[in-house]
Amino acid sequence: MKTASSFSVRPLVAALIAAACSLGAQAAAPNEPIQPIAPAKVTHPAMVELGKKLFFDPRLSRSGFISCNSCHNLGMGGSDNLKTSIGHNWQKGPINSPTVLNSSMNLAQFWDGRAKDLREQARGPIANPGEMAFTHELAVDMLASIPAYRAEFAKVFHQQPLTIGQVTDAIAAFEETLVTPHARFDRWLQGDSKALNADELAGYQLFKESGCVACHNGPAVGGNSFQKMGIVEPYKASVDAPGRSAVTGNDADRFNFKVPTLRNVELTYPYFHDGAADTLGQAVDTMGRLQLGRQFSEDENARIVAFLKTLTGEQPRIVLPVLPPSSDATPRPKPFDQ
Amino acid sequence: MKTASSFSVRPLVAALIAAACSLGAQAAAPNEPIQPIAPAKVTHPAMVELGKKLFFDPRLSRSGFISCNSCHNLGMGGSDNLKTSIGHNWQKGPINSPTVLNSSMNLAQFWDGRAKDLREQARGPIANPGEMAFTHELAVDMLASIPAYRAEFAKVFHQQPLTIGQVTDAIAAFEETLVTPHARFDRWLQGDSKALNADELAGYQLFKESGCVACHNGPAVGGNSFQKMGIVEPYKASVDAPGRSAVTGNDADRFNFKVPTLRNVELTYPYFHDGAADTLGQAVDTMGRLQLGRQFSEDENARIVAFLKTLTGEQPRIVLPVLPPSSDATPRPKPFDQ
Repeated sequence: MKTASSFSVRPLVAALIAAACSLGAQAAAPNEPIQPIAPAKVTHPAMVELGKKLFFDPRLSRSGFISCNSCHNLGMGGSDNLKTSIGHNWQKGPINSPTVLNSSMNLAQFWDGRAKDLREQARGPIANPGEMAFTHELAVDMLASIPAYRAEFAKVFHQQPLTIGQVTDAIAAFEETLVTPHARFDRWLQGDSKALNADELAGYQLFKESGCVACHNGPAVGGNSFQKMGIVEPYKASVDAPGRSAVTGNDADRFNFKVPTLRNVELTYPYFHDGAADTLGQAVDTMGRLQLGRQFSEDENARIVAFLKTLTGEQPRIVLPVLPPSSDATPRPKPFDQ
Repeated sequence: MKTASSFSVRPLVAALIAAACSLGAQAAAPNEPIQPIAPAKVTHPAMVELGKKLFFDPRLSRSGFISCNSCHNLGMGGSDNLKTSIGHNWQKGPINSPTVLNSSMNLAQFWDGRAKDLREQARGPIANPGEMAFTHELAVDMLASIPAYRAEFAKVFHQQPLTIGQVTDAIAAFEETLVTPHARFDRWLQGDSKALNADELAGYQLFKESGCVACHNGPAVGGNSFQKMGIVEPYKASVDAPGRSAVTGNDADRFNFKVPTLRNVELTYPYFHDGAADTLGQAVDTMGRLQLGRQFSEDENARIVAFLKTLTGEQPRIVLPVLPPSSDATPRPKPFDQ
């Protein structure tokens, strides 16, 4: 009897314990300063698909050579892995290109937050003479000269003519899908205690205890505040960017930058707004000294780096769009005609 | 009885007629100077997958900015749609970038055929100072510094160390999959008489009768011979390329170039080795006058163009590869350090 009873009860008890653990862990996540990333909810797939085409289309640049994906390469963590980007005519960019992954979670766009959202951000590089070096008018004329684009815009937006607002709406809609859920760290947050090893967990504890988490928190592990670069010690930047003060006009905001997301940070080297730190180890060391006044030991540094690598999420699965061909009426790119 | 009999026989007769027609059409294809493209047979998927990563990896260039896909963009017919390409430091390329689509069918690679196959071709741009401006040694060092690449090469090639030969083998294996079957013209060749409309068929007749087909034939509608550019009238090229004579040393081969494939020609503008023809209409007009001594009327030109657009095949479905991140030991790209 007893044996039979214990046999029938055991699975139930086990299930209850598992459920409780799982619940506990799920409930525990809100008590952590970092929250899991939710998968993207696509509400307008046709707009996303159009935005993807535009994101990959180098005809939005004067040269016909530079697309959004050139500097926010979706095969490379949504970044270009260069200290500062290469723009039209091989111009050297003034600042490191931030990742487009999870960028919809940022409180504002660009390092200095001068664009309030992705839609506004997307206007920038197209018309920036140092980046894609085009104009919004020429971009719209180019797109409107291509029958397949014209039809796709009309279908998505139900209004004509095609506008730059539609272009940036579509690009932003695509970018909003570029989230990276299911990182090992998120699995741990959601109750899978085996998702992190002892070093990674120790790194996370250190990340919290030493104060990194004061700025790097939330689902994006950053992206939600502006902070001064160089609090304890000044940062000697290799680029000449004033930061947030350029937007607010307030000198107190000088060298304040948007805290970058640490999601997928393993993929988005080099680090800082000037791309000066080539490796995660260098970045952690500099941040410890300049922001926290703390010199991490080699072991501590390695543990924090090990933790940071658990933030690499599932990368968006991108089927390369086949771009509609230019028509006879499409103005041709001018890569060498300065 | 009669009715019942005819009812039961009719479908059989219809099926026999349909089978005969279909057979006839299938049998007809060999009598046409153009043959359908067969879908790719992937014999070594792991090598193809590795080759795809390499094809998209800009770390094979000195700048970390230029990948094979920069000039052979798989979203743009395997070309860059520029007259001549943009190389390292925005150098102007000496010749139009040919499509990588169906390039395994070419009798040799490059406009002058200086590489015997895709494997040999892939060595070129990596080390060309005007293109990716890297060296084979640096490319191999870069790859070998990345644990995930090292493991993938070892798994695919079963030998170490990693070599440039393995790199070009993998890129070539990927490129061999970049074929574009199921064009409307192929469906017509295979017996679907409705696949082409009257104008397109008339264009094909004209293409054959006027002699275009003398050079543009076979499954790739070209790519299988070297021919002089400017037979009836000389071609005034806007670039200074000697053509085949640079390879053979034979002055008689001057201005001989590999006949380009016309597969997907709608997507691979601009045309000719100097990219001087922006539109298909211009290209057909120039070819008619210079190669055939024939001035096509506007209607004739339009019909040939209509036919050429039926050669656009199914574009390869490419899931963008997620590239393995550089390690701390990976040498960093040098985009601005001349």
